[in-house]
Amino acid sequence: MKFNLTEAGTILERTPVVLHDLLLDLPEGWIMSNEGPDTFSPFDVVGHLIHGEKTDWVVRTKWILEKGTSVPFEPYDRFAQARESEGKTLQQLLGEFKLLRQQNLEWLRSQDWKEEDFEKRGLHPVLGEVSLRNLLSTWVVHDLTHLAQITRVMAKQYKEELGPWPAFFRILNF
Amino acid sequence: MKFNLTEAGTILERTPVVLHDLLLDLPEGWIMSNEGPDTFSPFDVVGHLIHGEKTDWVVRTKWILEKGTSVPFEPYDRFAQARESEGKTLQQLLGEFKLLRQQNLEWLRSQDWKEEDFEKRGLHPVLGEVSLRNLLSTWVVHDLTHLAQITRVMAKQYKEELGPWPAFFRILNF
Repeated sequence: MKFNLTEAGTILERTPVVLHDLLLDLPEGWIMSNEGPDTFSPFDVVGHLIHGEKTDWVVRTKWILEKGTSVPFEPYDRFAQARESEGKTLQQLLGEFKLLRQQNLEWLRSQDWKEEDFEKRGLHPVLGEVSLRNLLSTWVVHDLTHLAQITRVMAKQYKEELGPWPAFFRILNF
Repeated sequence: MKFNLTEAGTILERTPVVLHDLLLDLPEGWIMSNEGPDTFSPFDVVGHLIHGEKTDWVVRTKWILEKGTSVPFEPYDRFAQARESEGKTLQQLLGEFKLLRQQNLEWLRSQDWKEEDFEKRGLHPVLGEVSLRNLLSTWVVHDLTHLAQITRVMAKQYKEELGPWPAFFRILNF
């Protein structure tokens, strides 16, 4: 499929709702467990998504429009949420994410986009040249893969309870 | 984590809501695309979950309680939804799934469970002996892994639009 701003916006605006439906008020074991050292729990993922709203997607979109490839993007801190989520509840994080996402989508939709704008380029500090089309598509994919991660992490918490059934669940070994 | 009937019920009852918020009214490309031959689209998954409500989880729970290991479960048809979903819209399937899940959870919660009931055993036609605890835990994991699958399948539809970014998304190669 080809990137489409309207469709991308539709998917991006659903993520806070889906996270809310999936996670709010679940017992702690379901939201704080992860897949091992240096992996994310559902709680970590929501903090990570918040950090992306603050420092990545729309920030880098504006960077491309204003600076092009003259200056690389600021590197993204994949573990910033360990600091930023400290002392907060999941409910607080879900609310914060919803608000930030809404503000970012409002900005995105308020711009007068022309097709050629999505071919404008920026400089990723590791990956090199990327287009705005690449960046905005990655925003969508980043949401979806983190939803996949959250549900996989949750599924793994019952692995020991399945008896012989893990043989049928390829995903439990990812 | 250990199987807990109340917690399992909480997760199971959220799945129809999550699917509704994630998928309803999305453009066809997002709900009908899959990962290649003999793989499921999001539309297929919803049909597959419906078939499970009708023929698997609660049906096999009753089978264990009534027949124990004397007769193996009926085999499960992983591709039944191709027939059963034919001609239906996603909206119809989401409604059907919601209703069936609700009825099955009502039955589950209406039983007077004792801890030892979950150790009762049945005979899976391929996996052999399984406990009710295994079966009910697998019901939860089955939901979660299919949510992981749906979001992964959706993410893959933008893979060609990401430029160099797939290098950062291990999940796109699952």
